[in-house]
Amino acid sequence: MPYVNIKVTQEGGPNGTGPSSEEKAQLIAGVTQLLQDVLGKNPATTFVVIDEVPLDNWGMQGQQVTQIRAKQS
Amino acid sequence: MPYVNIKVTQEGGPNGTGPSSEEKAQLIAGVTQLLQDVLGKNPATTFVVIDEVPLDNWGMQGQQVTQIRAKQS
Amino acid sequence: MPYVNIKVTQEGGPNGTGPSSEEKAQLIAGVTQLLQDVLGKNPATTFVVIDEVPLDNWGMQGQQVTQIRAKQS
Amino acid sequence: MPYVNIKVTQEGGPNGTGPSSEEKAQLIAGVTQLLQDVLGKNPATTFVVIDEVPLDNWGMQGQQVTQIRAKQS
Amino acid sequence: MPYVNIKVTQEGGPNGTGPSSEEKAQLIAGVTQLLQDVLGKNPATTFVVIDEVPLDNWGMQGQQVTQIRAKQS
Amino acid sequence: MPYVNIKVTQEGGPNGTGPSSEEKAQLIAGVTQLLQDVLGKNPATTFVVIDEVPLDNWGMQGQQVTQIRAKQS
Repeated sequence: MPYVNIKVTQEGGPNGTGPSSEEKAQLIAGVTQLLQDVLGKNPATTFVVIDEVPLDNWGMQGQQVTQIRAKQS
Repeated sequence: MPYVNIKVTQEGGPNGTGPSSEEKAQLIAGVTQLLQDVLGKNPATTFVVIDEVPLDNWGMQGQQVTQIRAKQS
Repeated sequence: MPYVNIKVTQEGGPNGTGPSSEEKAQLIAGVTQLLQDVLGKNPATTFVVIDEVPLDNWGMQGQQVTQIRAKQS
Repeated sequence: MPYVNIKVTQEGGPNGTGPSSEEKAQLIAGVTQLLQDVLGKNPATTFVVIDEVPLDNWGMQGQQVTQIRAKQS
Repeated sequence: MPYVNIKVTQEGGPNGTGPSSEEKAQLIAGVTQLLQDVLGKNPATTFVVIDEVPLDNWGMQGQQVTQIRAKQS
Repeated sequence: MPYVNIKVTQEGGPNGTGPSSEEKAQLIAGVTQLLQDVLGKNPATTFVVIDEVPLDNWGMQGQQVTQIRAKQS
């Protein structure tokens, strides 16, 4: 009965859209399959929760991702 | 000084409303009482955080809850 | 399909024991019942995970709980 | 490679704005610096995620923060 | 820069060992690959944290997994 | 009433010791001060929880930190 939490940035600017519904479906199917393959876990009781985090709220290198992206472009 | 995090789906479709404010108040009161009854924890320093997760972002059985609900209806 | 995470201190000193197995069973039963009563959630797919945190690793008032307890006693 | 999650209330009423982008930048810079100062952690691989929680979804003293604030004012 | 948290039960009884080091390596490699395949995420900044939860601390169906397993055997 | 969770690796090999009690006290004091300075949060109701993660259970670059460290040395 695994529980998996995936946090990704919500791309496309501060109000941007995150991953599409189809991409989220692929993440859920893929990680559930992985847990079945590696540990024999039952998909019926594998939970996956995806959190989409605004770029302003995610920090790396001591900076907001908003700032990191602005420098990259 | 317990910390409790409750994650529930945001029902009513992809843009649906989750639990009502009154229901959230009942969850907070109930789990705080439970921790006082079972472990003697002080309600003044018991934190409860409720996360409402969109149906597209919650997976079970390797599928999005959106898909599971569509098949059930 | 709620997911609940309960974090409590591991009482009895730095190497102390946390809540007993019986107390953890009561927390699991109680919070599962609460989610059924308030939101109609199915117990079969309600997950509860309890984390026991060493007193040295939990801070409040800018101090470790170990220090707070030492001053109280 | 630390991972830090900061949860704060989204102030200004149920639909209020949370911390400003500038304040979030300060939190990210400050906690990344702290981990470098205390544990020698590399800022390049220090992640910080800030969650802003609606007042209705945060409980303390067995009540929603919405209720606590209403009594204080 | 995704962050993934995988929680699994620590099998083999209350003091049992959880997944082997090799299995954990497979989970880390697999979920990092999945995020690269589906969302184009850079493995260099994909973090994965695995938590192994004692059977007494995981609840489902309103019961500890310890109790569920005892009835199954 | 912020809640902060800091996850760091438990250094010193698979069974190594993590940060010292003194270092954890500094992390707790520092992050509590930061939240007071930036957002005016009350230290009395600021919670900090530190999780020490075994090197085998933390992945980056698609590998366990145990493997990354072995290559570095």
